[in-house]
Amino acid sequence: MTDTLRVAMIGYGFMGAAHSQGWRVAPRFFDLPAEPTMEVVVGRDAAAVAAAADKWGWKESATDWREVIARDDIDIVDIVTPGDSHAEIAIAALDAGKHVLCEKPLANTVAEAEAMTAAAERAAAGGARSMVGFTYRRVPAVALAKQLVADGRIGEVRQVRAAYLQDWLMDAESPMTWRLDKTRAGSGSLGDIGAHAVDLAEHITGLTLSEVSGILDTVVRERPLLGEGIGLSGTASSERGTVTVDDIALFTGRFGGGDGYRPLGIFEATRFATGHKNGLQVEVSGSLGAVSFNLERLNELRFYDATAAGTEQGFRTILVTEHDHPYLAPWWPPGHMLGYEHGFSHQVVDFVEAITRGEQPRPSFADGLHVQRVLDAVERSSLAGSSWLPTVA
Amino acid sequence: MTDTLRVAMIGYGFMGAAHSQGWRVAPRFFDLPAEPTMEVVVGRDAAAVAAAADKWGWKESATDWREVIARDDIDIVDIVTPGDSHAEIAIAALDAGKHVLCEKPLANTVAEAEAMTAAAERAAAGGARSMVGFTYRRVPAVALAKQLVADGRIGEVRQVRAAYLQDWLMDAESPMTWRLDKTRAGSGSLGDIGAHAVDLAEHITGLTLSEVSGILDTVVRERPLLGEGIGLSGTASSERGTVTVDDIALFTGRFGGGDGYRPLGIFEATRFATGHKNGLQVEVSGSLGAVSFNLERLNELRFYDATAAGTEQGFRTILVTEHDHPYLAPWWPPGHMLGYEHGFSHQVVDFVEAITRGEQPRPSFADGLHVQRVLDAVERSSLAGSSWLPTVA
Amino acid sequence: MTDTLRVAMIGYGFMGAAHSQGWRVAPRFFDLPAEPTMEVVVGRDAAAVAAAADKWGWKESATDWREVIARDDIDIVDIVTPGDSHAEIAIAALDAGKHVLCEKPLANTVAEAEAMTAAAERAAAGGARSMVGFTYRRVPAVALAKQLVADGRIGEVRQVRAAYLQDWLMDAESPMTWRLDKTRAGSGSLGDIGAHAVDLAEHITGLTLSEVSGILDTVVRERPLLGEGIGLSGTASSERGTVTVDDIALFTGRFGGGDGYRPLGIFEATRFATGHKNGLQVEVSGSLGAVSFNLERLNELRFYDATAAGTEQGFRTILVTEHDHPYLAPWWPPGHMLGYEHGFSHQVVDFVEAITRGEQPRPSFADGLHVQRVLDAVERSSLAGSSWLPTVA
Amino acid sequence: MTDTLRVAMIGYGFMGAAHSQGWRVAPRFFDLPAEPTMEVVVGRDAAAVAAAADKWGWKESATDWREVIARDDIDIVDIVTPGDSHAEIAIAALDAGKHVLCEKPLANTVAEAEAMTAAAERAAAGGARSMVGFTYRRVPAVALAKQLVADGRIGEVRQVRAAYLQDWLMDAESPMTWRLDKTRAGSGSLGDIGAHAVDLAEHITGLTLSEVSGILDTVVRERPLLGEGIGLSGTASSERGTVTVDDIALFTGRFGGGDGYRPLGIFEATRFATGHKNGLQVEVSGSLGAVSFNLERLNELRFYDATAAGTEQGFRTILVTEHDHPYLAPWWPPGHMLGYEHGFSHQVVDFVEAITRGEQPRPSFADGLHVQRVLDAVERSSLAGSSWLPTVA
Repeated sequence: MTDTLRVAMIGYGFMGAAHSQGWRVAPRFFDLPAEPTMEVVVGRDAAAVAAAADKWGWKESATDWREVIARDDIDIVDIVTPGDSHAEIAIAALDAGKHVLCEKPLANTVAEAEAMTAAAERAAAGGARSMVGFTYRRVPAVALAKQLVADGRIGEVRQVRAAYLQDWLMDAESPMTWRLDKTRAGSGSLGDIGAHAVDLAEHITGLTLSEVSGILDTVVRERPLLGEGIGLSGTASSERGTVTVDDIALFTGRFGGGDGYRPLGIFEATRFATGHKNGLQVEVSGSLGAVSFNLERLNELRFYDATAAGTEQGFRTILVTEHDHPYLAPWWPPGHMLGYEHGFSHQVVDFVEAITRGEQPRPSFADGLHVQRVLDAVERSSLAGSSWLPTVA
Repeated sequence: MTDTLRVAMIGYGFMGAAHSQGWRVAPRFFDLPAEPTMEVVVGRDAAAVAAAADKWGWKESATDWREVIARDDIDIVDIVTPGDSHAEIAIAALDAGKHVLCEKPLANTVAEAEAMTAAAERAAAGGARSMVGFTYRRVPAVALAKQLVADGRIGEVRQVRAAYLQDWLMDAESPMTWRLDKTRAGSGSLGDIGAHAVDLAEHITGLTLSEVSGILDTVVRERPLLGEGIGLSGTASSERGTVTVDDIALFTGRFGGGDGYRPLGIFEATRFATGHKNGLQVEVSGSLGAVSFNLERLNELRFYDATAAGTEQGFRTILVTEHDHPYLAPWWPPGHMLGYEHGFSHQVVDFVEAITRGEQPRPSFADGLHVQRVLDAVERSSLAGSSWLPTVA
Repeated sequence: MTDTLRVAMIGYGFMGAAHSQGWRVAPRFFDLPAEPTMEVVVGRDAAAVAAAADKWGWKESATDWREVIARDDIDIVDIVTPGDSHAEIAIAALDAGKHVLCEKPLANTVAEAEAMTAAAERAAAGGARSMVGFTYRRVPAVALAKQLVADGRIGEVRQVRAAYLQDWLMDAESPMTWRLDKTRAGSGSLGDIGAHAVDLAEHITGLTLSEVSGILDTVVRERPLLGEGIGLSGTASSERGTVTVDDIALFTGRFGGGDGYRPLGIFEATRFATGHKNGLQVEVSGSLGAVSFNLERLNELRFYDATAAGTEQGFRTILVTEHDHPYLAPWWPPGHMLGYEHGFSHQVVDFVEAITRGEQPRPSFADGLHVQRVLDAVERSSLAGSSWLPTVA
Repeated sequence: MTDTLRVAMIGYGFMGAAHSQGWRVAPRFFDLPAEPTMEVVVGRDAAAVAAAADKWGWKESATDWREVIARDDIDIVDIVTPGDSHAEIAIAALDAGKHVLCEKPLANTVAEAEAMTAAAERAAAGGARSMVGFTYRRVPAVALAKQLVADGRIGEVRQVRAAYLQDWLMDAESPMTWRLDKTRAGSGSLGDIGAHAVDLAEHITGLTLSEVSGILDTVVRERPLLGEGIGLSGTASSERGTVTVDDIALFTGRFGGGDGYRPLGIFEATRFATGHKNGLQVEVSGSLGAVSFNLERLNELRFYDATAAGTEQGFRTILVTEHDHPYLAPWWPPGHMLGYEHGFSHQVVDFVEAITRGEQPRPSFADGLHVQRVLDAVERSSLAGSSWLPTVA
């Protein structure tokens, strides 16, 4: 490994911890064509960001992301701030010629995402790469699902069922956080977790949602204001605020992009699915088989082969930990589990390899924009009595 | 047991076998207040119905249901014909003062179901009872789910997800049967299996769907005509016919009937869910817990108690085979499984007890009509671009 | 069906109910070469046995089994009494030329089982058939497991793990029943449930245990005497008695009967496996695959095919409800569950067919004797410090 | 964090990678009282160990462990070599006043383990701490199981079933590695994986095995010699060698250490359990409940509470990812999975905390010696016809 890629990370919450772990660990297990180095982490609160730099292993901290983006000694800008600042930072970084990794959702609005995608296309001409962080694509079991579908092992896609089930907000006294404020978060369960269900469904099938019909709902409309804390945790104050995002999003969609039958998908994103902690579930039914994934058992893929002898058919649980499974070669012996954060290492691998090969990494900002358009269409459909709306302009 | 209830069964397909087993077995295990006797089975083909009488243990066979209904020595008429004949037979039987058990769906159209419900109400004044055969309510695990919800063990209902997943028609060369013909069957997956999902969701929650939005779709639009055979099996001929019912039905609904928040439900009924054979699944998320049922594991109920100690919460799998579980007292020791047909024995128990107590059994024809209205609204919503439609007139 | 086979059943406890259901239901679903008729049930208490005859649908009741065995109008004697009376009744019935179905365990001692087997061999010369009631062989998933092994789908057998896990006696105040009294029951968990684990392990593999090493243990040595009731249920009195049988049996065994490697098996039978209600589990590991069964999910077989592509291997859950699965043809559509009692119908089918074909049904009394010898060797091994003992004389 | 603890790691195979990850990651997520620094990695092949140092992030490499142990700037010696060198290195390191973390099994023979334990006791007087690397104790679900047992949630322990099921050697052409050579590895499945089953069973119950009876067996007695490679992977040469260790170990044991009933355990360790990749399973049945763990689902603990209402009992699956579960506070939000390597971070945390508090970390060398004695007694029992042997001198 001769070259290095010097990284600046903007933001340092829960996602910052995960990204830091990805940057740190990936080069230890994978032979990368260039070594990412953890240069600087950026945040508004100087003391807090300095502490984060120390904790997560960044050489420096800084408070002005514009200054950092202007530095010559930074190659990659990694954006892990709330969604309302993605567009401004990403566009500036791309215009400065930096490679950009941007956490999902790409932006809070379609307009922002369009501007970001345009910037990404401009920057690509100059060799700057950009990617949006749908890391669950990098869970080995998900990658195997995609591979089985692409290899024709389930035949023609007939149906998709996808859900992201959580129960984090089922306590009505759980406080407001920025994720429950539409101006900061853009949307609620739809954008935060439904986005993953949409992206995985499209990624695994290789199809795209062309029209959707949906409904959003808010179960608990008023919550205690946040005393202090960030993200989905935090303590409550005695005042109350109004939840302005959805708790639950239910929608159906029609996929295009294939040759024949245009399959339907059914989607659910909710933070009120009692007992489910992180149940991102995608199942694809095909003419020759099916694949089924649940993030709560992230090392497993369920696969049904309808071409097996009739008496021997059944969903099999593949423990996706073999060395010839996707991403698994450098890890542990068979049966030794990977965890949540490994997806962030795999993301680093794919991003670094795309950069050094001069290729467009996926998911691109255009992919992120498409997801944004799907979410936007769902939200507009909800306001229009669940009428079907196209996901393209 | 001093009294008897003399039963005539109209029809003798797959459902006839199941009902026969119910009538035969129930009195062996349960102490019934009156003994049902299997008098006569009715069908159009004299030889075939005679064979059915012999096989399934009915004393006689007959070819004219009107004559049978007119007989003084018949107390109960059990209707297991295709849906297009339910209304005529049931109304005639009720008007003749017979107790009527009618297989689901109650009818193929709302108008028929309304007429049947009116007949049931007239007949009730004279002491004739009527019930529609949503037997899955009598699976002990389902009855336990209802009981847990009624006892407040999951708190306020926040969300429902229900599906009936089958893959019986995924082979595009599987032939046309009467179930794929709209004039005979009324609808496809929606009425045949979606009806169960609707009924169980409402039964377990105690709530009713007041408005729905949905979409129906047909994956395979042309199939070989049926050579011979009945029901969902049968051999193919070389000619082809057009499938006029839905293969897949996806819908969302809003529940009413409670005091507070009106929860949403998400529903799927499909015969293209590769690898699923009989996956009737209902999960109810509440403010204090959740219950989750899957017919493919019909002796199990999954229950989540959100009031347990935080570190000890998890979905538990209750093996619903204890003597103090619903319907279980007269059966086997704990851990000895019941099967599909036991629901039909339990249905006989509930029907006979209601008759002898002079009470209205549930699900009533009015309950069946309500399900019919839900299905009808889903179908109309599908034609109207998934717009939301009320389920009441 | 022209011929009949007239059945007398001796005994009428829990097993009597299950056998009655088998005799009643089998002819309804299967085309039998002869029709079994439920003639007479025999017990010592005239009133109780008369009630049982009425409840379980036998034409008559009687109190003297010797008289019944002597009757010309009885073809089959079905023995469901406690194990200490099996030998006397079975030998008398066989000597009287009757076909005999005897509940497991065949007898309480090897000597009794040897005498029974000798009687069975004598009687066979005159055309009288005999079978021991290891009904779990007739669970379709078990029959499929055997078929997969016989077809070479798991290759050479390398290991067996078998267990029968129950928790019925974990309450130390649960009363003494005849099953806890060595003079009546012969042994405890070993003979009552361990016998099933041994029989299924041998049945599925086609191998026989040739030597064993084991240990028995009694967790609760004193219990309240039984007030009234039979079987494993019953109310407690205030006096206490000594448990004289084992609560737990653990043993290992070496299988013979194959050509190559002689695999080991590990066995556990216990009534103190908290949370397990009826966990009869058998898993066979082979050079090319594995099969795994659990009675608590009796409609499922887990199968692992090690010849599948390396990235696609995993235990698959076969829902053993297809019409081309063993015993399934006459039952319900795919995905409709069978229960515990269906094994008793299948037992009737196999027994009646063997009788009418003039063949030896399996498991024969010789098979039952072999299981008895295995259990006996385990018990003697336990007394001899777990030394290895042969299972043959 | 003011102090540092300077680490030298001896060995750099699969375990070296896992330990490196533990040293690197632990300080990022946990607030440690002293910071471990990765100083030097030691191996015999200078080029290979230099590459390992670079890959796994150690400042230096060295080829002479004695020189490294003698260095003043090393505080901790971490031993991840094959078992036959543990004793020599560990004793030397302890005698040099270093803290020692030694991978399991502690040694290949009881005599070596005794000498190491004596050295550990001598060294403790001078403040040097020692620990053996049974990292699975640090899987949060295992720690929760121990906590539930310690808190009385399952009552008195009645039975233990433990197994370590793998299928890594089921291919008879899989080559010889040092792990199949008794002189290097000490034993086969017994010591390599059975040791974990023994340690976890004792750790979770808080009891110790006082006597055992067992049998070892080798399924494939001859294998191709290893061409090149280390560990359980590697390519085959054309020559063949004799496997001198066990493939399968089956044993039973009696636990002591409690007040009342002395429960039995049943144990299996095998590399021929087709379809199982890393199935370390421990279930403890108690008078009030049960806990059940399987490493293939390492984020889950199954818990049965027999004190729940009778109709509500069932094994619940606790997703052990809540912030108030053991070790979980600094990690991800609920439902975000940990993997295999996290145990190594938790091991670092516990070891560093014990060192800085001046306490004896667990499992101590004495604990490791005890496991060694259990394994040795199993092996001697196997040679003595499975006779029961005590696990203490």
